Amino acid sequence: MTALDPDARSSALKDLPGWKYDLAYDALFRELTFSNFDAAFAFMTRVALTASRLDHHPEWSNVYNRVTIRLRTHDCHGISARDLELAAEINTILAASAPTQS
Amino acid sequence: MTALDPDARSSALKDLPGWKYDLAYDALFRELTFSNFDAAFAFMTRVALTASRLDHHPEWSNVYNRVTIRLRTHDCHGISARDLELAAEINTILAASAPTQS
Amino acid sequence: MTALDPDARSSALKDLPGWKYDLAYDALFRELTFSNFDAAFAFMTRVALTASRLDHHPEWSNVYNRVTIRLRTHDCHGISARDLELAAEINTILAASAPTQS
Amino acid sequence: MTALDPDARSSALKDLPGWKYDLAYDALFRELTFSNFDAAFAFMTRVALTASRLDHHPEWSNVYNRVTIRLRTHDCHGISARDLELAAEINTILAASAPTQS
Repeated sequence: MTALDPDARSSALKDLPGWKYDLAYDALFRELTFSNFDAAFAFMTRVALTASRLDHHPEWSNVYNRVTIRLRTHDCHGISARDLELAAEINTILAASAPTQS
Repeated sequence: MTALDPDARSSALKDLPGWKYDLAYDALFRELTFSNFDAAFAFMTRVALTASRLDHHPEWSNVYNRVTIRLRTHDCHGISARDLELAAEINTILAASAPTQS
Repeated sequence: MTALDPDARSSALKDLPGWKYDLAYDALFRELTFSNFDAAFAFMTRVALTASRLDHHPEWSNVYNRVTIRLRTHDCHGISARDLELAAEINTILAASAPTQS
Repeated sequence: MTALDPDARSSALKDLPGWKYDLAYDALFRELTFSNFDAAFAFMTRVALTASRLDHHPEWSNVYNRVTIRLRTHDCHGISARDLELAAEINTILAASAPTQS
C-alpha cells in the first residue's frame, strides 16, 4: 500500500461525490445526517459489514442522527486505494434504493 | 394485553400493507427480500432498535437476503395491539426514503 | 466446494463443541440462549461481521433471547469446509473473554 | 432534566468505575479497547439497543478496536441523571458474562 500523491487524490475525489479531503487528518472525509439515531446506526451497521469484508475500517463518530467518517490507511500514513474503495462502497450504500418488498 | 379477535385483526391488517395472517402460528407475517445479506442485516438492526424501544420483539429468521418476520404476543397467546404497533413501525422503516446527505 | 461425506462430517463435529448434525436440513446446527434480546442481537451482529468477511452466511432465526443457527452450503447441497470454518469462528466468538477495559 | 452540580457529579462518578469527567466537553467519558473491530462494533450495537430503549444516546467514536464514549444531555447543557443511567447500563454490558450456551 502506498499513499496517493495530491494529484491522484484530487482526481479520485472527482469520482466520489460527497467526499472531501481533510487536510488536518490527511484523510477522506464525509459527514452525513439521517432522520434519527436508528437510521444512522443501521447505516453504520451496513458500513461495518462492508468494512469487515474489505478488511479496511473507517474512523468515525456518531452523535444522534449524524455520522462523520474519515478514511485513511494507517500503514502508509495517508490515503490509499483501499480508502477510495471503501468510500465508493459507502456511496453505493447511500444510493441504494429501498429494498424489494414482497 | 388481550389478543385481537378475528374481526379486529382483519380490520387492522387493512392498514398494514405487506402483512398477512399466519394461521399456523397465529401471528402477523411478512417476508422481505433485500439486495444482499448486508442490506438485510442492516434492516434487521434497525428493526432491533425499534423492538428495543417498544420492548416488544419479533420472531424472525434470515437466509442471505431474505428476512421472514412473525409478530405475536406471548403473554396473550395471540396478536395484540403491540404487534400492530411493531408491524406499522417496520412498514415505516421500509418506506423510509434515503438519508439526507450533505 | 464439495459436500463432506458422513465420515468427514462426523470427524469434523468432534472439533466443534456445541454443534450437531441436523439430518432434516442436512446442516450443522447450534442453538444458543442469551440473557436477553440485546445480548442475542449483539452476538448476531458479531456473527454477521464474520459472515461478511468469509462471504459465507448462516441460516438463522431469533426469538427474544434465543438464536438458532444452521450452516450449509447451497452450492454443493450439503456441508462444506466453509461451514466448518464459520462454525469454528462462531465458537471463538462465544468463547471470547470480556473486552480489555481501560 | 437538570444538570448535576459538581458535588453530585463527583459523588455519582464513584459508583461508575471506568468513567471520568471530561472538562472540555462537560461530559462523562470512557474509552474502551476491544480485541478487534468486530468485538468493538458488536459492543456498540448492544449499547445502541440500550440507548434506543432509554431514548438517550451517546456521543461516540470508533477507530478499529477502540471506542470512545461521551455522555451529556443536550437539553440541560450538562450531565443529567439520564447520563448516569446510560453509563451504568454500559458498565453492566461490559461486565456481562459469556452467554449461556446449550
